[in-house]
Amino acid sequence: MENKGILIVVSGFSGSGKGTLMKELLGRYPDTYALSISATTRAPREGEKDGREYFFVSREEFEKMIAKDELIEYARYVENYYGTPRRYVEEKLKQGKDVILEIEIQGALKVKKAFPDTLLLFVTPPSASELKSRLVGRGTETMEVIRSRMNRACEEAQGMENYDYLIVNDDLNACVEEMHSIIRGEHRRISRNTVFMEEIKEDLIRLKGED
Amino acid sequence: MENKGILIVVSGFSGSGKGTLMKELLGRYPDTYALSISATTRAPREGEKDGREYFFVSREEFEKMIAKDELIEYARYVENYYGTPRRYVEEKLKQGKDVILEIEIQGALKVKKAFPDTLLLFVTPPSASELKSRLVGRGTETMEVIRSRMNRACEEAQGMENYDYLIVNDDLNACVEEMHSIIRGEHRRISRNTVFMEEIKEDLIRLKGED
Repeated sequence: MENKGILIVVSGFSGSGKGTLMKELLGRYPDTYALSISATTRAPREGEKDGREYFFVSREEFEKMIAKDELIEYARYVENYYGTPRRYVEEKLKQGKDVILEIEIQGALKVKKAFPDTLLLFVTPPSASELKSRLVGRGTETMEVIRSRMNRACEEAQGMENYDYLIVNDDLNACVEEMHSIIRGEHRRISRNTVFMEEIKEDLIRLKGED
Repeated sequence: MENKGILIVVSGFSGSGKGTLMKELLGRYPDTYALSISATTRAPREGEKDGREYFFVSREEFEKMIAKDELIEYARYVENYYGTPRRYVEEKLKQGKDVILEIEIQGALKVKKAFPDTLLLFVTPPSASELKSRLVGRGTETMEVIRSRMNRACEEAQGMENYDYLIVNDDLNACVEEMHSIIRGEHRRISRNTVFMEEIKEDLIRLKGED
């Protein structure tokens, strides 16, 4: 079977627990997956480390990366750039690792356009009512915070149809294994095994000729 | 999540061991899967039992089934009809079972056309060389038998691209679990969860209105 890794975009509702999910998946299968780190021009927050949460670069450096086509996708939010460095992703894919990008829908669609084989996963709580209660919180949030979360969730929900699979995060342990199993299964997709199929066909024809 | 079962067609190279694979899958997960039994007009062979290998019916009965649209697909090989009775399949799908049809590519494509959500699985040995050796056998076969197997395998190989997944049958135990896991993953496909997604969207909009 083919050894090339799959490029995977993971998005999801805020409050879906996708950060924890990614951390757990990477922790359990460090040889299978590689997590792509984004570059950004925003300043590091307390506790953030260069090369772990983000690669923190200057605006000049970032614009140089854009000019040299060194980013798979990038976007500007408010005053800052965010983007996915190309080299790391391509290296890891070639090594046979499945590379995970944790980005939002706009970036996801740009990546899919550039790499049509990209697998798009959307993390969601198990039910609408569960999503509701996570958004409302414990009753200690202000109306404004809840309203802003709700607006964001509505926007996020609009994009779901563009993804390939729903990752339903109910029980963390089960969800990690389900996600892993969906990705492994995806390696068996016909469209990801054209080399294998060509080989079988050629060998059969050669063997027929050897009568 | 949706409870409706998935209609699954399993095809594969002769000698891929798909019969054993199906038997094992059904045996391990009897509550998850239902195997559709074909109807045929050919006479039962020794050891075959009506309702187990096939439903053995007369030509008149079969043609009545065709006329009443009681078959999802049917074909005529040599002098005999073979077909998939509709009622059993639809009943089991409604009950939430994944229904498996073990049929060949022509039938598979007809089913896919009638039910576009059908999942098409193709069972193959792990490599071209393994397929070769299974086709050639232990050196006790006549040239004619080998040639006929080879021709058949070449035809079967031409159809592979129409399927959704390759099921690689190396180790039986691992293969059964992989197949089961691919089917489970398929239940999480975005396109199979439109009801779930609509619910989330509606609930979010309703909640926003309750401010």
